[in-house]
Amino acid sequence: MREVFQQELREVQDRLVEISSLVTVAITNATTAFNESNVSLAESVIAEDHKIDALAVSLDELAINILALQQPVARDLRIVVSALRISASLERMGDLAEHIAQLARYRYPDKVVKKSLRGTFTEMGRLDVNMAKNLTVLLTNEDLALVEVIREDDDSLDELHVSVFDAVLGETWKGGAVDTVDVTLASRYHERFGDHAVAIAKKVQYLATGDWAGAAE
Amino acid sequence: MREVFQQELREVQDRLVEISSLVTVAITNATTAFNESNVSLAESVIAEDHKIDALAVSLDELAINILALQQPVARDLRIVVSALRISASLERMGDLAEHIAQLARYRYPDKVVKKSLRGTFTEMGRLDVNMAKNLTVLLTNEDLALVEVIREDDDSLDELHVSVFDAVLGETWKGGAVDTVDVTLASRYHERFGDHAVAIAKKVQYLATGDWAGAAE
Repeated sequence: MREVFQQELREVQDRLVEISSLVTVAITNATTAFNESNVSLAESVIAEDHKIDALAVSLDELAINILALQQPVARDLRIVVSALRISASLERMGDLAEHIAQLARYRYPDKVVKKSLRGTFTEMGRLDVNMAKNLTVLLTNEDLALVEVIREDDDSLDELHVSVFDAVLGETWKGGAVDTVDVTLASRYHERFGDHAVAIAKKVQYLATGDWAGAAE
Repeated sequence: MREVFQQELREVQDRLVEISSLVTVAITNATTAFNESNVSLAESVIAEDHKIDALAVSLDELAINILALQQPVARDLRIVVSALRISASLERMGDLAEHIAQLARYRYPDKVVKKSLRGTFTEMGRLDVNMAKNLTVLLTNEDLALVEVIREDDDSLDELHVSVFDAVLGETWKGGAVDTVDVTLASRYHERFGDHAVAIAKKVQYLATGDWAGAAE
């Protein structure tokens, strides 16, 4: 029974890694589509999001079956409950990548972001992609050094998020309302993507170190 | 054992109702603060949010203890897992109410919204408050007729959300960048608040009707 349980936990882990990999592809393509006004790439992100949703639902069913059949306790129970929460965050990260792709599609053939902020959004996209990649590795091998890397990327992301508002609310901003709406939403989507990545990284960290209280933050 | 379990489930339900009541107070005060530029009311919403967070963490611990000690299966298991998800959504709704209050505080003593859109935001706030109130009743008595009422309020909210962008992107919009940023964020917060209310209502509905697949949406 114990061996079956360990095998099922590995299956849960494998599926989280799979979803995280798809989220990485989604955010990579979404930010490329956003930066380069690539409408077909944007549409592919939008068309693929249902796969992430379906995998998350299927992972949840697996986790609930494990709870019902194996009735884990203590740390094993925490792992399964965490998997449910991590899958919810990954699913949401997929949605946010899709929202970024939608902005690129709406504005096509125009670029979403005015020249003065393009470097900022390229960097936000790079940070999001980096966080998603590191999250996938963290979920694969539980190398906790990556938690700090993910947090640092998120700090950089938050600074850029603030700088976007400074730019838009500054006297030199020449954008029209449509530009202002787009950068406000895009910046918010990037920021939330990073928040979810940090939330997942914390859960992996606290599961590994046994400090569950911290994982609930 | 069965009786203890039923008592614990009632405790879970009571706590969800308590959190939902606090979320109702938060969104009521946040939208009033937002509409009336009431900075002290805004600050009270911001100061109180940690209570919602703490109650959600404590509810999660209770639910995990029930899983460990009672090892529920079938519908009982679904109820406990749903409680974990409902608490996450309620916690997030509290955050969104706080974000709306923060906008009111940032702009004080100015009003957040220009006159032309004030009616729209008053109505969005009214819908959010209504949804939170109905959610609290739904969680209390599982009167499934309320699910449809909540969905309809959310549909109205979505229409208003679209109308905000139509107004901001229309030719008659006279707002500066700060106005555009604020209404973009505020409208997004209202829309997400409604999405979470619908997600919770669906979970209650599907638990009551036994169609779990729908609850995972």
